[in-house]
Amino acid sequence: MEITGKNFIGNTPSAKGANNFQVSNPQTGALLPTSFSLVTEDEIKELAAKAATAFKIYHKKSAAEKAVFLETIAAEIDALGDTVIQRAMQETGLPEARLQGERGRTTGQLKMFAKLLREGSWADARIDTAIPDRQPLPKPDLRSILVALGPVMVFGASNFPFAYSAAGGDTASALAAGCPVVVKAHPLHAGTDALVAQAIINAAQKTGMPDGVFSLVFSDEAMAIRLVTDPVIKAIGFTGSRKGGMAIFNAAVNRTEPIPVYAEMSAINPVILLPGTMAANAAGIAQGFSASVSLGVGQFCTNPGLMFMVNDAAAQEFLAVLNDKIKDIPAATMLSKGICAAYNDGVAKLKSSATVAAHSTATVHAEKTEATPYIFTVTQKDFISNKNLSNEVFGPASVIVLCSNVEEILEALQHAEGQLTATVHANAQDEKYMDDIVDLMKEKAGRILFGGFPTGVEVCDSIVHGGPFPATTDSRTTSVGTGAILRFVRPVAYQNFPQHLLPDELKDSNPLNTLRIVNGVHTRDAIA
Amino acid sequence: MEITGKNFIGNTPSAKGANNFQVSNPQTGALLPTSFSLVTEDEIKELAAKAATAFKIYHKKSAAEKAVFLETIAAEIDALGDTVIQRAMQETGLPEARLQGERGRTTGQLKMFAKLLREGSWADARIDTAIPDRQPLPKPDLRSILVALGPVMVFGASNFPFAYSAAGGDTASALAAGCPVVVKAHPLHAGTDALVAQAIINAAQKTGMPDGVFSLVFSDEAMAIRLVTDPVIKAIGFTGSRKGGMAIFNAAVNRTEPIPVYAEMSAINPVILLPGTMAANAAGIAQGFSASVSLGVGQFCTNPGLMFMVNDAAAQEFLAVLNDKIKDIPAATMLSKGICAAYNDGVAKLKSSATVAAHSTATVHAEKTEATPYIFTVTQKDFISNKNLSNEVFGPASVIVLCSNVEEILEALQHAEGQLTATVHANAQDEKYMDDIVDLMKEKAGRILFGGFPTGVEVCDSIVHGGPFPATTDSRTTSVGTGAILRFVRPVAYQNFPQHLLPDELKDSNPLNTLRIVNGVHTRDAIA
Repeated sequence: MEITGKNFIGNTPSAKGANNFQVSNPQTGALLPTSFSLVTEDEIKELAAKAATAFKIYHKKSAAEKAVFLETIAAEIDALGDTVIQRAMQETGLPEARLQGERGRTTGQLKMFAKLLREGSWADARIDTAIPDRQPLPKPDLRSILVALGPVMVFGASNFPFAYSAAGGDTASALAAGCPVVVKAHPLHAGTDALVAQAIINAAQKTGMPDGVFSLVFSDEAMAIRLVTDPVIKAIGFTGSRKGGMAIFNAAVNRTEPIPVYAEMSAINPVILLPGTMAANAAGIAQGFSASVSLGVGQFCTNPGLMFMVNDAAAQEFLAVLNDKIKDIPAATMLSKGICAAYNDGVAKLKSSATVAAHSTATVHAEKTEATPYIFTVTQKDFISNKNLSNEVFGPASVIVLCSNVEEILEALQHAEGQLTATVHANAQDEKYMDDIVDLMKEKAGRILFGGFPTGVEVCDSIVHGGPFPATTDSRTTSVGTGAILRFVRPVAYQNFPQHLLPDELKDSNPLNTLRIVNGVHTRDAIA
Repeated sequence: MEITGKNFIGNTPSAKGANNFQVSNPQTGALLPTSFSLVTEDEIKELAAKAATAFKIYHKKSAAEKAVFLETIAAEIDALGDTVIQRAMQETGLPEARLQGERGRTTGQLKMFAKLLREGSWADARIDTAIPDRQPLPKPDLRSILVALGPVMVFGASNFPFAYSAAGGDTASALAAGCPVVVKAHPLHAGTDALVAQAIINAAQKTGMPDGVFSLVFSDEAMAIRLVTDPVIKAIGFTGSRKGGMAIFNAAVNRTEPIPVYAEMSAINPVILLPGTMAANAAGIAQGFSASVSLGVGQFCTNPGLMFMVNDAAAQEFLAVLNDKIKDIPAATMLSKGICAAYNDGVAKLKSSATVAAHSTATVHAEKTEATPYIFTVTQKDFISNKNLSNEVFGPASVIVLCSNVEEILEALQHAEGQLTATVHANAQDEKYMDDIVDLMKEKAGRILFGGFPTGVEVCDSIVHGGPFPATTDSRTTSVGTGAILRFVRPVAYQNFPQHLLPDELKDSNPLNTLRIVNGVHTRDAIA
């Protein structure tokens, strides 16, 4: 398959604009082949019209039809074979095995939503049957179900060219919900996005989905905001920086019709190491931490950027082992020059207000966009008084807050902003602190871990990838796992409707055999 | 029980401010006893601190404890007896039977949420158990559940002194979710709110709930916005005007930490009368419509303010019968001078751009704050070109859009904004239009009706009282029924937690016997 550099206005390749860009290889600095055409106002209008028309057809496709569409997208992405992996490697500097794994996760997500649709109970069908002779007034027949919001705009993320991009979790969950999707390709991996977009279009055509069920554009910031404010768009999915996320959020809530924004933006994922477990296993925890913080050059939204521990003998041992592990970590290429420069800038700022506790001694080749881990220590007082120490530094950096006792840890954590994750390491000696600490972790984060490290986000029913602001702009949802479908739906109630005009999920006979709430009882039974 | 006119800063009556107001009786114009103290900055700070502390205790109360609290509130409201009904009659001009019914609905809602909590499955417990030997990486144990957002601020509504006020649906659902509540009393029925607040405080004290689990303030607009922007507040419930709702929404989304706003604001609830059913039953429908539009002097958010029909012989019969029914409807007292003036103003504006089709010939006593119904007709072209014809006129007014054919009805409906409800009347002759019409109704409204009229909102699992903007600021939710609890929660995932630190709903043994998703299967079974 060839990368043409054209926008996908629904099924139509389009390059009406005069402005183009190329992607460069962060490992070599070389510009990669293909020039990508920045989308124009005319093209936005065309795709908005197509998305609106597609919505009217697509949301009425049966669950089984949508499931086949999602599975066909997965098959088409697999069929891209090595071409897309090679392009992604060139665009992102990420290693082959990681990208292959990420593609597997991406196609796995699509198949997971297909399975969810076939089972059908996610749609939360609720039925209260009529009581015509109720006094003082008859009770009507009421039945409700979740329906699609409308076309959704998705912003691809720099750090996951597959799993959070053209066919990533936002796209998969929106399509599963019955919403057409418009993706803004990420400029750092536009070629990968273009290949995946073509795979989605192929799948749409093979399965008879309407033109406009999927579009992908290459866009500057102004035109992206233009699309956010288009009346056709009914929700936004975004993964990226706090600045970018807030610009989109502000545009979306100031529309004539405000719309939901699911922006995952910023997290430093605190890890609390309690003294009992530290006394027992400081070296082991240090080893696990050094692997987690440097995984993928720290380019994960769940990277552990903040640790709390009591400054005791175990902490000193922890720091010694950490230093020993970190010093040998090789330099590695980051996603782009810009991201690497921002990391170096973040590290420089931390150096001015915190103590370097560990860093790699590897040679850094700037021309290869390389970076190495930096771990800092600060006192609890400094942490509380200096808000900048809580800013996310995207990359393999972490700040360790040394506290006098566990009460100081709790106080410091109270000052942290909302997070994607919070982790505690504890053993039986730490039990007395656990109630307070778990309460606080729950208040601050969407996912809380007992032991381990937050990198690695399982895709399943029970995952929560989300959390209080500024981790996301909407803590009520998750962007990973089956729960993500709930972001793109709203309930509609049908009052006194005849059977033939009801959706299948609400018919007396329950032809899809979904779990429903019927007159207050959860059941798959038909209504006699 | 006595009305003191003091704010309830948690359990503490407080009147630190210099400014007061009294409520007047709309039927007589007389000022009612008791001066209400407007809340001050100091008092806001006190209640915010109390709400924050109360949250830490309250959200950990068991489902059974919260259920007893809600049931005790219902009992305490019943114990207010005739005192609160008489005060509400004096403050709102609403008839005794209606207020008694509304109180019953309010206590019924509290008991409904108590039942929901005891059953427990609403919390959406999801469990994926570990697979330690999975390749390439072990699968962790993940379990998720919905947890309370934090303190919620509720704005009481003018038109429902019980069901959407101090102990109304927003308060009941927020308390059920585990959130402390701060109510801004509605100035038109401050005494009713004060009595109900005292009942809630009594219940909190009797059931051992923390001071600050409930507060109620009398507030001007500036101080209300001050409270909306307090960092302690994590969500807002509002029922009222579009202007008021948008002021709150804008303040809430521009906070440092934006928060969800559930504002129910504006709806004209279109009713579509198709030609087949009109030919068969124009007179019967006209009779039903005249009763619905004038019910409670039209002071319902589900009042049918907009009708569409084909301008045929049946439409002329409909208008004749309507005129005949409407002309005899007696004048009735509206909620306040201000609301009555706004209604008269809205009617005057409609008179300038639409034709009066029916109105009551009853004498209107302005000194008794009385009003009468007005029904207008407009052409489809005028309706589409004049946006003002779609503005909500709160009260017994309605606009009938006369169309040339059903296609024109669809075109006109497409121009309508988001609605709480949409209704269609159809018979077998109208079947060919139904697919398109139901699709459009579903796109525009939160509840769609086949036959009947939208006034009357059933409280149950399957009700949806909500809808696309501007009906509400968040179409993803309902403010009535058990689903309302989902507005005040967010999911949290527990990774690799030991059993004793998990909430009961997520323990292997499933001690509360709730329905859970365990490894992809809906079940109440314990995990072996």
